[in-house]
Amino acid sequence: MMRSLALLLAAAMPAAAAVAAPPPTAEHTRSYAPLFAAEVEAAKRDVEASIRAGINVPVPKDPGGGFTHEQHKRNYRIIFEGGQLYRLTGDVRYRDHVRDLLLAYAKLYPTLGPHPAAANQAAGRLFWQSLNDSVFLVNAVQGYAQIRDALTPAERARIDDGAIRPMAKFLSDGSPEVIGRIHNHATWACAGVGLAGYLLGDRDLVDKALLGLDKSGKTGFLRQLDLLFSPDGYYAEGPYYQRYALMPFVVFAAAIDANEPQRKIFDYRGGIVLKAVRTAIDVTHDGYFLPINDAMPDKSLRTDELYQAVAIAYAATRDPVFLSIAERQGHTVLTPAGEALAADVAAGKAKPWPFASRLLSDGPDGKGGALVLLRDRPTATGPLLVVKNTVQGMGHGHFDRLNWLYYDETGAVVTDYGAARFLNVEAKRGGRYLPENDSWASATVAHNTLVVDEQSHFAGDWKVGEKVPTQQLASRLDGPTRYSIAAIDGAYKGVAIRRALLLLDIDGLGNPLILDILRGTGGGRHRYDLPLHFSGQIIDSDIVFDRKLAERPVLGTANGYQHLWVDGVGSAADKA
Amino acid sequence: MMRSLALLLAAAMPAAAAVAAPPPTAEHTRSYAPLFAAEVEAAKRDVEASIRAGINVPVPKDPGGGFTHEQHKRNYRIIFEGGQLYRLTGDVRYRDHVRDLLLAYAKLYPTLGPHPAAANQAAGRLFWQSLNDSVFLVNAVQGYAQIRDALTPAERARIDDGAIRPMAKFLSDGSPEVIGRIHNHATWACAGVGLAGYLLGDRDLVDKALLGLDKSGKTGFLRQLDLLFSPDGYYAEGPYYQRYALMPFVVFAAAIDANEPQRKIFDYRGGIVLKAVRTAIDVTHDGYFLPINDAMPDKSLRTDELYQAVAIAYAATRDPVFLSIAERQGHTVLTPAGEALAADVAAGKAKPWPFASRLLSDGPDGKGGALVLLRDRPTATGPLLVVKNTVQGMGHGHFDRLNWLYYDETGAVVTDYGAARFLNVEAKRGGRYLPENDSWASATVAHNTLVVDEQSHFAGDWKVGEKVPTQQLASRLDGPTRYSIAAIDGAYKGVAIRRALLLLDIDGLGNPLILDILRGTGGGRHRYDLPLHFSGQIIDSDIVFDRKLAERPVLGTANGYQHLWVDGVGSAADKA
Repeated sequence: MMRSLALLLAAAMPAAAAVAAPPPTAEHTRSYAPLFAAEVEAAKRDVEASIRAGINVPVPKDPGGGFTHEQHKRNYRIIFEGGQLYRLTGDVRYRDHVRDLLLAYAKLYPTLGPHPAAANQAAGRLFWQSLNDSVFLVNAVQGYAQIRDALTPAERARIDDGAIRPMAKFLSDGSPEVIGRIHNHATWACAGVGLAGYLLGDRDLVDKALLGLDKSGKTGFLRQLDLLFSPDGYYAEGPYYQRYALMPFVVFAAAIDANEPQRKIFDYRGGIVLKAVRTAIDVTHDGYFLPINDAMPDKSLRTDELYQAVAIAYAATRDPVFLSIAERQGHTVLTPAGEALAADVAAGKAKPWPFASRLLSDGPDGKGGALVLLRDRPTATGPLLVVKNTVQGMGHGHFDRLNWLYYDETGAVVTDYGAARFLNVEAKRGGRYLPENDSWASATVAHNTLVVDEQSHFAGDWKVGEKVPTQQLASRLDGPTRYSIAAIDGAYKGVAIRRALLLLDIDGLGNPLILDILRGTGGGRHRYDLPLHFSGQIIDSDIVFDRKLAERPVLGTANGYQHLWVDGVGSAADKA
Repeated sequence: MMRSLALLLAAAMPAAAAVAAPPPTAEHTRSYAPLFAAEVEAAKRDVEASIRAGINVPVPKDPGGGFTHEQHKRNYRIIFEGGQLYRLTGDVRYRDHVRDLLLAYAKLYPTLGPHPAAANQAAGRLFWQSLNDSVFLVNAVQGYAQIRDALTPAERARIDDGAIRPMAKFLSDGSPEVIGRIHNHATWACAGVGLAGYLLGDRDLVDKALLGLDKSGKTGFLRQLDLLFSPDGYYAEGPYYQRYALMPFVVFAAAIDANEPQRKIFDYRGGIVLKAVRTAIDVTHDGYFLPINDAMPDKSLRTDELYQAVAIAYAATRDPVFLSIAERQGHTVLTPAGEALAADVAAGKAKPWPFASRLLSDGPDGKGGALVLLRDRPTATGPLLVVKNTVQGMGHGHFDRLNWLYYDETGAVVTDYGAARFLNVEAKRGGRYLPENDSWASATVAHNTLVVDEQSHFAGDWKVGEKVPTQQLASRLDGPTRYSIAAIDGAYKGVAIRRALLLLDIDGLGNPLILDILRGTGGGRHRYDLPLHFSGQIIDSDIVFDRKLAERPVLGTANGYQHLWVDGVGSAADKA
């Protein structure tokens, strides 16, 4: 494991440079396993096309989805891929193209101020939000590391001093309000700054990344590992952001391990980095991340973040269950870890991932409630009952305590809307969250849980919700009667809610039954609504509906009710 | 070819019985190609489960989707599969189970009158519509043929006289209003009656199936081959029913060829049966049948009908392009034709199906207009412009002259609603078409073509539409500028419509552009609506919409307009 990771960042530290990196192997003597060979071929197509197109480093202008935004994304990808290809092939055309791209950035970057399309997020230089600048740096450093020793001292100095160091400075000392947070944006910043620090041999940058700008350890990467994951490796913001945040966590952890093995980063906090990878795989159905909180439902294990995470986790553990995930992904990364993983996949070493019921505690101390996953078979696509008894999930959390979802072989059955957003579609508010993300997607009524008096939990204030845990009272994860029982007292003033959700295996039924028992207790008069959002058609009902066929009103005026069309109205008493 | 088809129905005719069928081969000496081996295994699972469950031949009661309906469907499947398994393995348990099922039908069938759940369709005996009774007989005869010679004379007589012959009598002399039509229901009846006739050595039944009840040739199977397909093998009712009708056409044709080779049925009318199979494959995108007219959009080449059609067409032609379709299907039939096809697939003989642009003339004489398919690459999933310039398509036809659809790698982009129906869902009108099939799905406004004065074409009378062809004026099927130009004059009184649809390959664009030029010409004042139904989100527009966010009315009161919610209203002039 050390060996392959050390290869990855062999050029990163002056100290490591003494251990001479092996000269690039003539490629025709190498034989790649199919999974890796496909990545090499794909990267060659990308980079060759970029070489033909020439260097294009535009002055930043557009928000997400716009031309300059997408072009800078393409460029960091080419820097990453071109660097890896140079390492693999020794072809100087790749080195020169990556160098020329980086020289263009070294020329442009010092001239930039805050991005003109910046909105409510912290402004970047290359992108509308500084988050994307961090992503740029994380990728660019990994590519640059592969060519840096093969440049002239003058070229190296221009890139170091015109691009890499200024970018790292901007994302550290220049952005204390970002890197000082306990939040995935800060993790991306730390990873970029720390990787740059290792590459440049700049201890100050590394320490700021690890321990915060004041190097006290109250913020920074290690503190994020303490606070952003529960002891079970569940990420505070939920599965969608667990996926997104995983990349900087695993890439920076691998770099720390390669450069400072004495830190034993993969053992830190009981092995939290690897727990986070395993839990990320568990919070999926048929490979798709469970779309609770702000989430796009189409994100799956087939993403760059998870290719990196699986390759790095396999390098760190050699646990063959990661290989079956790589087979399902059909992709890996261009790094030595990816190459080694592909070889073991080809050697037939994969073992099935042990999908099972899990109670994933939430909160840094594990006392903030739990995300409960109930499965009755060890497969990626089998029945899955999801119960959301977590804390809020920070700013991306929805007001959906005690919410539940259900999946079977056909996909989502009892559903979650996820986020209201057109990711990377410029015409839709520059790819940002839409106003309907607040007015509908995060509202309680958009979920399968109790709404009292047409209000969202915590009156829709996520900072209040962040302070109120859910009480996970009991659970059983195996046997024919699996269940979760939980309660929330502070979601509504004066109303306590308790809910039991059971997954029952019944003789003669192919799939389990779900039993849902919910009780609201409070004084005074209240209106209780219990929505059930599901994928499918109403086939029959014991309620006769007065259908609104000619004019369809909305159900209310606020808290999501203004987005609900009234299709029909009825009560059980209507049917004799 | 003859050899394998003769094997299929070797036991069918007394004359053929003189050529002794080979004794069942001990199965452990046989080695099946994977595609066929999988079918044998699946059939064994089905039939073994049925043997364990015991004989269940209930008194008919339920409509489509209900228990008795589904049980009789299971039974004919078991009879088919069990018969084939007996032929392949010689295992008498399969023979005896099929025999016992058929004996149970021989006991029940003579007691039955019209089905109690019969609705507006011709009532069956076992099923709510006689169509399903025909399907039963087509399948049951194919299974019974494999065991009939291995029964005692008494058993044979009871099944012949209690089930097969009475079923054939009911579907012929007993149902003149069905078998006398030029319609897929009649084709199913002819196939069932004709297969039974060959098996029983009953020339009268065979002749009635081939030439009609009066044996004049004015109706019956051969006349259906004359009238239901255009010279290009396009089926009058459209792709969905082309798929459905294909089964009786190919199965009965194969039986005719095996029993009366001198008829040269596969050469009849210029080889119309095989043209119909090829055209059925051409009217798909990514394997899914184009959902024009009454159609469920989820029907694909992966259906029993197409497994039979591809195996029989390959047996008749040995054209290796059928093998690539079989590979895509991943299934074949349990017959000798299926076994031979699977062997050639395993031997690597498959060649790609030559998807291309086609102008499929409509009408028995090819003068009723055309279905135009424009493709710019020879793939199943590439861009496809579909232009519907056909005649009506009989009772399942929609009022959608000059309609168009568009597909790309993501699937349907410009779409067709298809049919309003929950196939086999008992609670939804017994699986029949819903009232909304008339009020919405077949209406002109539900399609991408011109609506004049909020009326459907031909005032919504399909019998009028059946008499009015579309004029296919010009077309070009290759080169960078492919197009279709067509006109319809009789859809609206006093308004002639002409439309050109072009598929343009543009340098630098991955996919073609579609250009749509439509012109309506008429006197007086008219309201013209040109709907465009598409899959996706409106991203931007030069029209400012007054959005109906609080109360959403419908667009009109009839002809489909009563089903259209008004989401917003605007005109181009609103935007300065």
